[in-house]
Amino acid sequence: MARESSVDHPADLPASRSSDEGTRRPRLARWMVSGLRHYLGDTPVRLDLWGALIDEPREGPALVSVRIRSPRVALQLAYNPWLHFGEAYMRGDLDVEGDLLALLTGIYRAAISRSVGRPVVERASTGLTRNTMPRSRANVHHHYDLGNDFYRLWLDRDLVYTCAYFPTSEAPLEEAQEAKLEYVCRKLRLEPGEHVVEAGCGWGALALYMARRHRVKVTAFNISTEQIAYARARARAEGLDRQVEFVEADYRMIDGRYDAFVSIGMLEHVGLARFAALGDVIARVLDPVTGRGLLHFIGRDRPGALNPWIRRRIFPGAYPPTLSEVFTRVFEPHGFSVSDVENLRRHYALTLGQWRARYERAADTVRAMFDEAFTRAWRLYLAGSEAAFLTGSLQLFQVVFTPRGSDRLPWTRADVYRGMHVGGAVPALVGLPDPAGGRYP
Amino acid sequence: MARESSVDHPADLPASRSSDEGTRRPRLARWMVSGLRHYLGDTPVRLDLWGALIDEPREGPALVSVRIRSPRVALQLAYNPWLHFGEAYMRGDLDVEGDLLALLTGIYRAAISRSVGRPVVERASTGLTRNTMPRSRANVHHHYDLGNDFYRLWLDRDLVYTCAYFPTSEAPLEEAQEAKLEYVCRKLRLEPGEHVVEAGCGWGALALYMARRHRVKVTAFNISTEQIAYARARARAEGLDRQVEFVEADYRMIDGRYDAFVSIGMLEHVGLARFAALGDVIARVLDPVTGRGLLHFIGRDRPGALNPWIRRRIFPGAYPPTLSEVFTRVFEPHGFSVSDVENLRRHYALTLGQWRARYERAADTVRAMFDEAFTRAWRLYLAGSEAAFLTGSLQLFQVVFTPRGSDRLPWTRADVYRGMHVGGAVPALVGLPDPAGGRYP
Repeated sequence: MARESSVDHPADLPASRSSDEGTRRPRLARWMVSGLRHYLGDTPVRLDLWGALIDEPREGPALVSVRIRSPRVALQLAYNPWLHFGEAYMRGDLDVEGDLLALLTGIYRAAISRSVGRPVVERASTGLTRNTMPRSRANVHHHYDLGNDFYRLWLDRDLVYTCAYFPTSEAPLEEAQEAKLEYVCRKLRLEPGEHVVEAGCGWGALALYMARRHRVKVTAFNISTEQIAYARARARAEGLDRQVEFVEADYRMIDGRYDAFVSIGMLEHVGLARFAALGDVIARVLDPVTGRGLLHFIGRDRPGALNPWIRRRIFPGAYPPTLSEVFTRVFEPHGFSVSDVENLRRHYALTLGQWRARYERAADTVRAMFDEAFTRAWRLYLAGSEAAFLTGSLQLFQVVFTPRGSDRLPWTRADVYRGMHVGGAVPALVGLPDPAGGRYP
Repeated sequence: MARESSVDHPADLPASRSSDEGTRRPRLARWMVSGLRHYLGDTPVRLDLWGALIDEPREGPALVSVRIRSPRVALQLAYNPWLHFGEAYMRGDLDVEGDLLALLTGIYRAAISRSVGRPVVERASTGLTRNTMPRSRANVHHHYDLGNDFYRLWLDRDLVYTCAYFPTSEAPLEEAQEAKLEYVCRKLRLEPGEHVVEAGCGWGALALYMARRHRVKVTAFNISTEQIAYARARARAEGLDRQVEFVEADYRMIDGRYDAFVSIGMLEHVGLARFAALGDVIARVLDPVTGRGLLHFIGRDRPGALNPWIRRRIFPGAYPPTLSEVFTRVFEPHGFSVSDVENLRRHYALTLGQWRARYERAADTVRAMFDEAFTRAWRLYLAGSEAAFLTGSLQLFQVVFTPRGSDRLPWTRADVYRGMHVGGAVPALVGLPDPAGGRYP
């Protein structure tokens, strides 16, 4: 353990209270404990402050133990916990034994309790990051070009790197990801022969599924070189390369005319400053009569920046918007009409839990591919995201919409749920009729 | 027919083009036809301008014939068609023969086409009408205290005066209204013994249904004296008066602590200026742990005032908000979390169609109760509203939400649709289990 040899007293502790070296450090530690407890919430946590002080939880046995290796780390935490918790954890200057998820869930719950009744914070300037095309490419490269081999270690077989849909909470991840793909197709009411455009297609799982199971034509855009290469190879291998075109280009380059627009997990990387541009793209390419769209994205209940550590280490340029930020900036300028909004945050918590379990089983391989700090950073990112969705600090929204004046609003949603709970794989319903109200006019 | 003896030329018509009395009026009429056609859209309409000019539709036989009785009415229409169409129609200075709905649908479609691509109009000042408690009471009295006998002529047997839910488009109105009540209960996942507060309860149909079929306790607020008296009598007659309390008071007076907050068709009467007050009420009375809420309201895809004639004659003080106006002003200050949004505008068009058919059958009775102008005004209001929902000029949103930090977000929505399509009455599912994900944590 690295010991700090000299640490200044915080200014508001009278110097007279310091005495010899032996009691000085415990006093600093004791002073810090209450601040840390405020931040950690109600989870029973044992605190070990650089060996100078062990503080047991007030009630019950500790679920988790946090060891802070030096007073300097404690001071950094006091200064900006949301950044320095992750920084210290990555370096190993803060260590956690026991239930990491319980620890993080407690932290998020405490933050939510503190926020109730407080006025909405000003729209964070980070939300306005100007994600120009080169900046977007750099952001995406930072995260999505870590190597397909890395993601294969802990994603499902189709490499679907977004929230799954679990018809029951016991469904295996592979089934839940396929159910999500089918769920999106059903919400879009795809009909064979239609032409769909996808913005931000990842490794192509949805594009290929739509083509294979719903017999539509797909044009899919992505700026991650590694992902596009993988998706193209898969399309060729499946003989779907005449039905699905993968285009390595920014969403702002989308052109043509489509029956459906779909984007899964891209909006949170767009940034508020480019929402109007996205709306313009959708209005330009979506058929005004037959068109409908679906946006699936990580969001918030009130405006707020993404966790600063996640932004620094994991997702540069990302911003999880509120529904009203999306509606006022993307939808209202064109009068897009909201058909359906669903909040799937509990599904994202479960998805992340399954990813994290696989990730932990592959941790040695990750360490060999990268290093210890990377391995710890991604553990924290996965557990922290799970905690954020569990507690409602983050939301996962699926929004279905139609262009102004279109009449592709389904009669009811009942048809979407046909066969959804029979257990096992969810059947693909191709060319959904509108059982309740007849075909669309 | 009342003939206007002297009408000034519009300023931009050179005086030299006027000649004798015989040709002057047709010239004015011809000048007006193109403006009227622009406003009327593509519906094949025959125009009869005070007998001076009959203008047949360019294509196909006329579906509907509009007779404008004088140049003065035509000039008023040119000045403010959205107000004076209704005013002239009420007085009989503008008459419609044939398909009134087709005429109004064409007008709304043309307005929507013109608006595509145009910037959003500034938030209409009318949205900010300060509906103080006395003002709200006057507004409500204007409409809802017209006499229960009047509404009994054309509403369903339970006097449900909001959008129904038609599991199939062939369902009779009585079934569809009961299905709506059940649908709302399912979306709220009511459990026996819970306490629900309803803001704006109409004649009490939902409050009584919740108590009777879902065995909850209900406290229901309304400021319409006639409606409250009716609802109380019905509760006594059904022996539900110990389970349901009807309170004649403004929503701002709601106090206590409830498991669920529900409001059907009240938000559009609140006005933007009071949305924050409504949010404060909900935050104050909804249980932060077990609570959830449902708002059902007429809304818009982009900000815009209600039709000025409807505001003058039918619904003073009303404003149909966009989702983002609701989210930023009612939800975000308290961090309420959106679980589910559904757009039911096609159901409202169908509901209005059924009301209108009943209304027309009772038109002679209405005329005897009121007068010809009233009878015509309500005909136009019902047909105009149907056209607005058909075309997407108005939306009908159901929004389900939970307080910040609550975990009453259902696992999936599949359970809501159980038994919804078997035909006939929709069964009441009492104390819905969460079949997919276990009980709420």
